[in-house]
Amino acid sequence: MTLEQVSANRSFGGTQGVYTHVSAVTGTPMTFSVFVPDHAPGDRLPVLWYLSGLTCTHANVTEKGEFRRACAEAGIIFVAPDTSPRGDDVPDDDGYDFGKGAGFYVNATQAPWATHFHMRDYIEQELPEVVAANFPVDMARQGITGHSMGGHGALTIALRNPGRFRSTSAFAPIVSPLNCPWGEKALTGYLGEDQTAWAEYDACALIAGGARLPDLLVDQGEGDNFLEGQLKTHLLVEACAAAGQPVTIRMQPGYDHSYYFISTFMAEHVAWHAERLKA
Amino acid sequence: MTLEQVSANRSFGGTQGVYTHVSAVTGTPMTFSVFVPDHAPGDRLPVLWYLSGLTCTHANVTEKGEFRRACAEAGIIFVAPDTSPRGDDVPDDDGYDFGKGAGFYVNATQAPWATHFHMRDYIEQELPEVVAANFPVDMARQGITGHSMGGHGALTIALRNPGRFRSTSAFAPIVSPLNCPWGEKALTGYLGEDQTAWAEYDACALIAGGARLPDLLVDQGEGDNFLEGQLKTHLLVEACAAAGQPVTIRMQPGYDHSYYFISTFMAEHVAWHAERLKA
Repeated sequence: MTLEQVSANRSFGGTQGVYTHVSAVTGTPMTFSVFVPDHAPGDRLPVLWYLSGLTCTHANVTEKGEFRRACAEAGIIFVAPDTSPRGDDVPDDDGYDFGKGAGFYVNATQAPWATHFHMRDYIEQELPEVVAANFPVDMARQGITGHSMGGHGALTIALRNPGRFRSTSAFAPIVSPLNCPWGEKALTGYLGEDQTAWAEYDACALIAGGARLPDLLVDQGEGDNFLEGQLKTHLLVEACAAAGQPVTIRMQPGYDHSYYFISTFMAEHVAWHAERLKA
Repeated sequence: MTLEQVSANRSFGGTQGVYTHVSAVTGTPMTFSVFVPDHAPGDRLPVLWYLSGLTCTHANVTEKGEFRRACAEAGIIFVAPDTSPRGDDVPDDDGYDFGKGAGFYVNATQAPWATHFHMRDYIEQELPEVVAANFPVDMARQGITGHSMGGHGALTIALRNPGRFRSTSAFAPIVSPLNCPWGEKALTGYLGEDQTAWAEYDACALIAGGARLPDLLVDQGEGDNFLEGQLKTHLLVEACAAAGQPVTIRMQPGYDHSYYFISTFMAEHVAWHAERLKA
């Protein structure tokens, strides 16, 4: 597996890189970014995975996420994957919320999506192997976070892989694809009409089914356009309360769904992860 | 003069706004961004002007500059103008370094540029009036900074307006348009072949001619592609040394010309300005 470096920029006392590789899982080239703080030779650093939201690539958080100062100070490697396979051979949809840029971190089972849209396996299996083989990460100390669709990805991947992540957080996550138009469209398309196949991709359903995390931090803007119709944070509040899942959900007055919101609370998330990754 | 709000996003305990107005000076609509930290009713805050580099609009630093945390903590308003007039009526050049996105903060005297390219008057006169009339700024406490072409703008505007700015800094500035290809092309186009008209737009020439600042902070990446051929930081070092102009020039190993460099040192620049603006 050959990793190609697209760019490398010195930033905040570390190196912000962008890399591509040919993914066996998606059958396409995949691009991701990695920030590596300066460290002593031989050191292996904790790693924080950041999964992005609809329409995003690795670039959005890399340019606008304001994570580097906090990661450099904490000595944490930050990895930001793309949100779907890309390329002329990859099917797409006219909407921004399905197809390219909208992989929903599932393994698609329905044609024509099943050929390339294996973002679950890519994020859970292939990319961690690539990162472990090429960067000075300590895979015993992983945290995961994400935004919106990527918050959904972070929560469901952490819930399905108990013990893999020492820390989990999310910014404005989709908490229940079973119960929102974005989820209904995407999961119908990728997984088919039978909603029993959806439950493993629904954080609230996973929690109700007994999956647990040590704890969980969520920030959600009260001024977020998508709060009422898509994100439905209250469903996560209720699912955690019913199941006894520890969670800290912070409603942030006035904040919207943008990177102006994410960047504001990024350093606090990095600190929250650092506390658990370096304990 | 009517100011139209394009957007407003809550961020870092303040409001990041984008605004447009019809400029009498350029004869075009002009767009700029303003970050206003939360503050007590009636308070007037110091203002830091940030002038952008070639190809940029207000958006680059607004999205990637990582200034909001530092400005919110220091209670400083941050204003980022565009780099040229825009619009179908505005002449342009095929190069990225002349015409739209490349106003060089001059008042053009040559056709066809002289009709709209009055960025000096826009930044020195009109925009400050617009900002003073519409935002809670204390115009007795102004600082100015900028990047590359905008660093050139910050230095020359501060040097030509003694006493207006309590603090001046720059990221990777063009220090002498008289002595670099970018400057030669743009100033020939905007001002004509007679280089005597250029001197008031050349920081090194202004310092050699007796203009002074209380002090000056410059960060320059040693890995900057443009350092040798265009920026020529050593000319500023020599001009300041010859004239006795106090200056702190920090050469930053490995850093390039990008916002990965700017964002790294932005908080230190804001702190440097804050120390002088709040003294």
